[in-house]
Amino acid sequence: MTGSGEPRIEIIGVKGIGLVKEGDDLAKLIVEALERQGETLRDGDIVVIAQVVVSKAEGRVVKLSEVKPSPYARMLAERLGKEAEMVELILREAEEILRMRNGHLITRTRHGFVCANSAVDLSNVSGGDAAALLPLDVDRSAEHIRRRLRKLTGRRVAVIISDTFGRPFRMGQVNVALGVAGMEPIHDRRGEKDLYGRTLQVKEIAVADELASAAELVMGEADEGIPVAIIRGYRFKASRKPKGKVLIRPRDKDLFL
Amino acid sequence: MTGSGEPRIEIIGVKGIGLVKEGDDLAKLIVEALERQGETLRDGDIVVIAQVVVSKAEGRVVKLSEVKPSPYARMLAERLGKEAEMVELILREAEEILRMRNGHLITRTRHGFVCANSAVDLSNVSGGDAAALLPLDVDRSAEHIRRRLRKLTGRRVAVIISDTFGRPFRMGQVNVALGVAGMEPIHDRRGEKDLYGRTLQVKEIAVADELASAAELVMGEADEGIPVAIIRGYRFKASRKPKGKVLIRPRDKDLFL
Repeated sequence: MTGSGEPRIEIIGVKGIGLVKEGDDLAKLIVEALERQGETLRDGDIVVIAQVVVSKAEGRVVKLSEVKPSPYARMLAERLGKEAEMVELILREAEEILRMRNGHLITRTRHGFVCANSAVDLSNVSGGDAAALLPLDVDRSAEHIRRRLRKLTGRRVAVIISDTFGRPFRMGQVNVALGVAGMEPIHDRRGEKDLYGRTLQVKEIAVADELASAAELVMGEADEGIPVAIIRGYRFKASRKPKGKVLIRPRDKDLFL
Repeated sequence: MTGSGEPRIEIIGVKGIGLVKEGDDLAKLIVEALERQGETLRDGDIVVIAQVVVSKAEGRVVKLSEVKPSPYARMLAERLGKEAEMVELILREAEEILRMRNGHLITRTRHGFVCANSAVDLSNVSGGDAAALLPLDVDRSAEHIRRRLRKLTGRRVAVIISDTFGRPFRMGQVNVALGVAGMEPIHDRRGEKDLYGRTLQVKEIAVADELASAAELVMGEADEGIPVAIIRGYRFKASRKPKGKVLIRPRDKDLFL
């Protein structure tokens, strides 16, 4: 908030993280990169981190040439016009195949995320022969980084691990929040009144997804390599438990399906 | 961009727009409210406006007590536990009913948007007896406001008219872009290379939706009444034609359905 009282939020891209590899201390890399920008974390900051660098730091990277596709993966790969090794990884990461069409596989991952190719990622992974898989437990990854940032800086921040997903009904992809630590991912406005005293129709805002999308606006330049953004000035509701999972809609509560 | 070279985006809530009514010059109200905050528009700013105030300025508000529900609307209303007048409006605004369950109607609006209740809005409309309907042509509304802002300030800005939609697979609602003027809603990255020289997997980012979501972070406080946000520092690709429509995914291109 500024002196004049209007809400003001800042999104700061964090450059110079460099190429992340297994075992790297991502929290430390972020703090150091911020320092080189003349910035430091503040209480209440939200640190949004692209999933791919978290996966790399956690060693969730697989060499495609070392993957042995099953006969089923080979058959599917041929039908879809994809690499058999890639299809094998997608199947391993999937709890369920939802759609299979035009060379695309839409799956529900073991975490419950519905996305293309089980979020197996070939971009920004070294060499062209490697694929990054989602962290095994994205909330735990977010909480781990949050605690580490607290230890390194003393600051109470929230951490969001984000990825870029397609979605039904609308063109293009947007960043969403997979892992969330330190904050409530949903702003529950049930019972609040509108400008005229009427109870609000819109009740639950997925603010963690909106924060992930906002962060993408500075992260989106691949050639600059900006895997992290700091969002400053948004007053979130703190949470002790990591809970990105609450953003996954249970099938029986999905009015759109 | 700051001196140190990292991308930095600012989201500024615009307070004090007041209660908008039919015939109001929304562009003028925005410019005046900004002035009272000690701000002025700059070239390259993105002005995100909540749909409900655009609808009100355009007179797209209906008194529920003056709506005559059809027998079909009455029957549906009873089945869904909704007001018959509200169901009548939802049906009038709908091109197609997609789902009907647990008191909810998911429709495709005449514009092509898939959302709850044809986006008919009872919140923040006067008196409790009124409902706001979407503007007839949201892109045209956005373009109209963009031109008017240009005339009033001389600035070249982009305008996004946003609304809060639920979505499949994920809990909570997020702001999306309905009307878009002055900028390309999708950042087409096909052909770009990643950090390792591999062609990017993620190809088309719905930046207008991400901007709408970012704006919601300051607009989301109903009691403060912030229907407009300025986003500064995001370098969009200019477009001469309004084209929020390109964000609507044609059914035959929807891999998720």
